[in-house]
Amino acid sequence: MPFSLAGRDIISIKDFKREEIDEILRLTDAFEPLADRGSDMLKGKIMATLFFEPSTRTKLSFESAMHRLGGEVIGFAGSMGTSVEKGENLADTVRVVENYADVLVVRHPLEGAARLAAEFASVPVINAGSGAEEHPTQALLDLYTIRRELGRIDGLKVALVGDLRYGRTVHSLAYALSLYDIKLYLVSPEILRMRKEVLAGIRGRVDVVETEDLAGILPELDVVYVTRIQKERFADPAEYEEVKGSYRLTSAMLSRLKPTGIVMHPLPRVDEVDYDVDRIPQARYFKQVRYGLLVRMFLLASVLGAI
Amino acid sequence: MPFSLAGRDIISIKDFKREEIDEILRLTDAFEPLADRGSDMLKGKIMATLFFEPSTRTKLSFESAMHRLGGEVIGFAGSMGTSVEKGENLADTVRVVENYADVLVVRHPLEGAARLAAEFASVPVINAGSGAEEHPTQALLDLYTIRRELGRIDGLKVALVGDLRYGRTVHSLAYALSLYDIKLYLVSPEILRMRKEVLAGIRGRVDVVETEDLAGILPELDVVYVTRIQKERFADPAEYEEVKGSYRLTSAMLSRLKPTGIVMHPLPRVDEVDYDVDRIPQARYFKQVRYGLLVRMFLLASVLGAI
Amino acid sequence: MPFSLAGRDIISIKDFKREEIDEILRLTDAFEPLADRGSDMLKGKIMATLFFEPSTRTKLSFESAMHRLGGEVIGFAGSMGTSVEKGENLADTVRVVENYADVLVVRHPLEGAARLAAEFASVPVINAGSGAEEHPTQALLDLYTIRRELGRIDGLKVALVGDLRYGRTVHSLAYALSLYDIKLYLVSPEILRMRKEVLAGIRGRVDVVETEDLAGILPELDVVYVTRIQKERFADPAEYEEVKGSYRLTSAMLSRLKPTGIVMHPLPRVDEVDYDVDRIPQARYFKQVRYGLLVRMFLLASVLGAI
Repeated sequence: MPFSLAGRDIISIKDFKREEIDEILRLTDAFEPLADRGSDMLKGKIMATLFFEPSTRTKLSFESAMHRLGGEVIGFAGSMGTSVEKGENLADTVRVVENYADVLVVRHPLEGAARLAAEFASVPVINAGSGAEEHPTQALLDLYTIRRELGRIDGLKVALVGDLRYGRTVHSLAYALSLYDIKLYLVSPEILRMRKEVLAGIRGRVDVVETEDLAGILPELDVVYVTRIQKERFADPAEYEEVKGSYRLTSAMLSRLKPTGIVMHPLPRVDEVDYDVDRIPQARYFKQVRYGLLVRMFLLASVLGAI
Repeated sequence: MPFSLAGRDIISIKDFKREEIDEILRLTDAFEPLADRGSDMLKGKIMATLFFEPSTRTKLSFESAMHRLGGEVIGFAGSMGTSVEKGENLADTVRVVENYADVLVVRHPLEGAARLAAEFASVPVINAGSGAEEHPTQALLDLYTIRRELGRIDGLKVALVGDLRYGRTVHSLAYALSLYDIKLYLVSPEILRMRKEVLAGIRGRVDVVETEDLAGILPELDVVYVTRIQKERFADPAEYEEVKGSYRLTSAMLSRLKPTGIVMHPLPRVDEVDYDVDRIPQARYFKQVRYGLLVRMFLLASVLGAI
Repeated sequence: MPFSLAGRDIISIKDFKREEIDEILRLTDAFEPLADRGSDMLKGKIMATLFFEPSTRTKLSFESAMHRLGGEVIGFAGSMGTSVEKGENLADTVRVVENYADVLVVRHPLEGAARLAAEFASVPVINAGSGAEEHPTQALLDLYTIRRELGRIDGLKVALVGDLRYGRTVHSLAYALSLYDIKLYLVSPEILRMRKEVLAGIRGRVDVVETEDLAGILPELDVVYVTRIQKERFADPAEYEEVKGSYRLTSAMLSRLKPTGIVMHPLPRVDEVDYDVDRIPQARYFKQVRYGLLVRMFLLASVLGAI
């Protein structure tokens, strides 16, 4: 039977086998021309964005993807002014909104929220980030970026740098990368080391090195994936001040990155990637944004059964 | 002359004769297939949602209805960040926005606001809730639900339960039901009894029984319409705590409802309908949501002259 | 070579020669029928509204313009809940969002922000107001209104009335008017006189009279352009109270305006134009709103290369 995501939920990267991910990455290529000239593939379809916490970039990316395919968008951002504020629970919200849309895109501060939404919804649910762990479409677009820019994922040396403890994107990505034959460097200050449960999930399948020393490993790397150190994740502001400058990339520092290496970042950045890095040829974080659009176009078209 | 809503405003359920309402309910059926597969009926048309107070569910319902018919949506929710905050009055807002849209959907905390908007607008205005009294599209979708689920409205025994004083939906609904040959039970704690002016409007036309005893009348009922007791309507929190649990439906309690009876709720619910009620066959509140979409599709298509 | 705005940014009215403005005004006429019946001219195109400060009217005007041409809209209003709140800078926001849209409409509280956005964006940027000085699409719609209502701009006597110091619309408009052969009256209280730098830019090219006496010049005027005295611009509330009533138009006062004169206002008004003025034949401020839609339709179609 050919691969199909029709009617499926996209909740966790862990729900996908490597072969499925490879197929997603391969099929996404076909959406490049549709992103440029538009399409009627999802004409008459409606996507609802249920964003219980703000994320403008992710929301705009999904909205653009839906419109590029000819579909329409409804939704809300923030719980302010929603039924949620009146005390409605997530299951009820989902069972109401599924009457208004053909696919739900859910972002929620709580772990497991997207999964719960999918259990109640009769239409496909796409997780746009829930709790600190899952952000599957970000992981897919990160893989797609690596594959598009470097031609393959197997055999690469990849470093995840910065906040590996609270950063939601790196948890999904670390798992996704562990499906490939790579060497994974986890580079962070002691206090922001990768969570034990994530480590447990990937160790044994992939060669993992934890280190605090980015400079030392930089010349070996194919991919430097930097994440923002999010102030709002720290209970103690002093702790934040202490670590925030530790893993800041500059063009001087990156002169030791090989020419074929690439620098990625899920954005928004604050100051962990210096603006002078934008001009080095290895910078890929704005291309990543573009690739994210393509991946989300593919996912929307797929779960809605249009391909 | 055939029935037509083209160019008309939908402000109050009281503006409609019973024959007109019957025609609306009958014609709404035709929009079921359009809700599933979409339509170009309102292609090129724009609906503006002017929501001066938040109501995510109602807003999403209208937006979905417009998109299902191929139309577009603009608008705002909350007065924050709008010209209104700069001191603009409603009449000016309407005379500005009517240049941008073909139909205005207005929600406002003040009594009479939607009527005022309609007086100034040269395009049709649909009231999506104004003040504590009027919510005509909710009343129409409630009637449509009863008719679709029970095949008729005449001859039924209907109970409105909960907050009959502050709940906007029950005022429009009580009036709408009074156009039919029904027996109406008004079930509430003393402090939340139906307003005198609403009672005055329906008494004489319909058989009304006011009671605090839901359990006693339950076996007789065809329709149990439960409303949320809205905390924000109470000046005194203690008063709220005292009454909120009084009219809470459970599946145990509803075992005494006849098999052909139905349970309705305008949603969102907080805890006035227990979650175990979702599983009993008489629960219809999520179907109500779906029917609301159909009714709003019909109304939009009608006032815009597309049918 | 024929006139073309394809791919151009619309940042400042100062970027345009008089001949170009005349051509914009002339070509806008053709969009009148499209505003009424819709069009597929921009089908498949996406406009992103990046509103870093609220402006509902301007936002709705652009959104309606885009939808009337068959295009789609994404965007945000206010920096709340956006990446901006997480510390992202404008250049990064632009380089992200340009991946999601074909044209960016930017509103920003800071001088020069739209220009900066245009420098980083690979897609056209339209300035929807930045800082206290520039609001080019408002200036163009104001000119268009005068031309449509009076048949010409050259030879007219135009008064700008009210807050000439803080009012963003009058700065762009004063400059635009200075390209024509007009007599310009600047009517304001001493404390709200036109900024020196704006005066410097127009003096010599156009006959300018500064005065505090509106009544005295009223019988001569062809155009009375009134602006709101914006409370939020005053550091001292007492100062606001002192001046706000000084330049309030009433129908009695306007009985001295000639029959062919017109009254304009960028809206929203608070109380600087009495409601009884709405009924005099010279009132044009709601027509101005309609004309703004046409001008923005033209600009969007033009920069996107559709005409």
